[in-house]
Amino acid sequence: MMQFAKWTNSSQVSITRDILKRTEQPGVISFAGGVPAPELFPADELAHAYTEVLAAEPQSSLQYTTTEGFHPLREALASLMEERGVHCSADDIALVHGSQQALDLVGRLFLEPGDLVLVEETTYHGAVLAFNPLGVRYRAVPTDDHGLKVEALRDLLQEERPKLIYSMPTFHNPSGVSLSHQRRQSLAALVAEFEVPLIEDDAYAELRYEGKQEPPVKAFDQDGRVIYTSTFSKILAPGLRLGWVVAPREVVAKLNIAQMGASFHVGTLLQRVVHNYLSSGGLPSHIKILRSAYRARRDAMLEALDAHMSEVARWTRPEGGFFIWVQLADGLSTRQLLQAALSEKVAFVPGDPFFAAGGGQDNTLRLSFSTATVESIQEGFARLARAVRVVA
Amino acid sequence: MMQFAKWTNSSQVSITRDILKRTEQPGVISFAGGVPAPELFPADELAHAYTEVLAAEPQSSLQYTTTEGFHPLREALASLMEERGVHCSADDIALVHGSQQALDLVGRLFLEPGDLVLVEETTYHGAVLAFNPLGVRYRAVPTDDHGLKVEALRDLLQEERPKLIYSMPTFHNPSGVSLSHQRRQSLAALVAEFEVPLIEDDAYAELRYEGKQEPPVKAFDQDGRVIYTSTFSKILAPGLRLGWVVAPREVVAKLNIAQMGASFHVGTLLQRVVHNYLSSGGLPSHIKILRSAYRARRDAMLEALDAHMSEVARWTRPEGGFFIWVQLADGLSTRQLLQAALSEKVAFVPGDPFFAAGGGQDNTLRLSFSTATVESIQEGFARLARAVRVVA
Repeated sequence: MMQFAKWTNSSQVSITRDILKRTEQPGVISFAGGVPAPELFPADELAHAYTEVLAAEPQSSLQYTTTEGFHPLREALASLMEERGVHCSADDIALVHGSQQALDLVGRLFLEPGDLVLVEETTYHGAVLAFNPLGVRYRAVPTDDHGLKVEALRDLLQEERPKLIYSMPTFHNPSGVSLSHQRRQSLAALVAEFEVPLIEDDAYAELRYEGKQEPPVKAFDQDGRVIYTSTFSKILAPGLRLGWVVAPREVVAKLNIAQMGASFHVGTLLQRVVHNYLSSGGLPSHIKILRSAYRARRDAMLEALDAHMSEVARWTRPEGGFFIWVQLADGLSTRQLLQAALSEKVAFVPGDPFFAAGGGQDNTLRLSFSTATVESIQEGFARLARAVRVVA
Repeated sequence: MMQFAKWTNSSQVSITRDILKRTEQPGVISFAGGVPAPELFPADELAHAYTEVLAAEPQSSLQYTTTEGFHPLREALASLMEERGVHCSADDIALVHGSQQALDLVGRLFLEPGDLVLVEETTYHGAVLAFNPLGVRYRAVPTDDHGLKVEALRDLLQEERPKLIYSMPTFHNPSGVSLSHQRRQSLAALVAEFEVPLIEDDAYAELRYEGKQEPPVKAFDQDGRVIYTSTFSKILAPGLRLGWVVAPREVVAKLNIAQMGASFHVGTLLQRVVHNYLSSGGLPSHIKILRSAYRARRDAMLEALDAHMSEVARWTRPEGGFFIWVQLADGLSTRQLLQAALSEKVAFVPGDPFFAAGGGQDNTLRLSFSTATVESIQEGFARLARAVRVVA
């Protein structure tokens, strides 16, 4: 037996992994995943970018680079942030292997064993995977259909001293909800007042299907307390593994030191290829295609929920992202429904593992509409309705 | 002021970084770097692989994948390991963003604050960058011109209980030396006897320019104590960021859990592209090209050392890799020589920062022949000889 560090004994694998395996059986319609639709990846445009970069810069695109990374890419990201409502420059940006690495590195910059992290009532499991090895505790901030309740956060901050707040204010995974403009402003003011760093995870930023675009919380960050992270995983392709962080300079500097130890830098070729793709101007029209496709899927799923589930559940109505959060009526069990659903060859993810600070009950579930076609959503809900009749 | 985790206060940037900046001035001939020769990168072949993979597998190559990664790539790596003398299967292999990430993740699996890590007298700085955030201590194992002295390691293991031994048995960075066959066997037996995990860093495995290929220490690992890591950075291109680990199954499983939290997985497209490249059969002939080019540079540098430095220094005679380690004669100062050398527009890296456990003096330096042409080596040593005359 090898003697491992203590954290490895309590480590867990991804909650959705076991479910995802069971959904891989032929014929299962899955609303369980949370991945982008692969048929929408701009593979030809990326192939073109790889060809161009390797022809034009065969040496520098394949060599080591600095940990800070390719300056023109960071300039392009600063422009993209400007469009999202955040004013920053290339030097305010750190590059990471997907925003998962941002959570890992930012966690390591701030968290030590026993530290407290505040999270929303349900939270993205990737954050827990990143923070758990650091031996931290979690406490949940109450949320409603408009996301994190800022006044409840104030009450919590008056009794606790968290080292970090982790939040997904826009198209939350798993709940699908988004913070109002007012709450965004209040949240930025609150973390400034209490001097607590906030990780704003903005993975779904551009994927809005209705309503007015809201600026990130980072846009209201006068005091340098917000560490913003986003990714190309949902708007380009997750198989690339490229994300970025916008943060105060001292955080960017420390992130780069942590990155140097963790993996030196993000792939040089990848940085130049994504820069090439962004320079071609193709992203805005690609995002329009994504929005249109995902909007149709969301609409189809909300319609199917109305048609088949209105008597046995209530759910969120997301304006973007990939997810709808469902709460079953009293007396219905998510685990029993999942069992019946898998028999009918339709799948979803139970909700209770998303409660990082505990408190989950056996009556919630997450649905993803991102990879299902409109037809498969309709067929999937016919099956789900049969499963409901079995357990109701 | 933000309240960061304690380790960030003592963190340091790469030692060679400052030197490397000074060598970027026009006209400087640099033996300071440690990077592969960019003109030798197989850019056309890689462009071909990207085009093929994105055309054949546009969806799966851009989607998320499992943390374990692309099975055919791991099978190809198992074959490559067989050629290196290590019998293993795809399931014994974990994929990482370059072997730097292997050091980070393996370090996190085993090391806790205060733990002891044994390293060679001089050691690869990337390992220190990976382990330092974990708050560990180092002790040096004595070395000679044949690498780590195994009997001295036995003495150390009888008085200390290290959590980990980190070693680069083949074409060591910075010293250039390699362990004999006998010492490899003894080292494997010793870590089995004392039940200490050994990280074997084999970054330069294939880059042998003379002598007989020695199997890795991992080849003698009967007891599952050796965690082997290697990389495509030196034989393909470091800008890709792809490395791998061969380890006992329980270590591979825990590495994948750590990887899931750290960055989910290595880029899907990258995995498939490197698999495509390996399947094309181009690697063996590419490695022949690399060996031939680097051998000529090594020979030129050893000749130049003989011609210009034999009265003021002694040095190692590496059979492979990128580095020659130089010890200056009594009374000569590396720092003074570097000052004079930079005035003559030639650069190298001082040796003392490579002593991770301390003990370095101002009389050693590292030379890299990897990126210098034979002509620039000759010119560079003419300049270095002038610098020596200034300080001697």
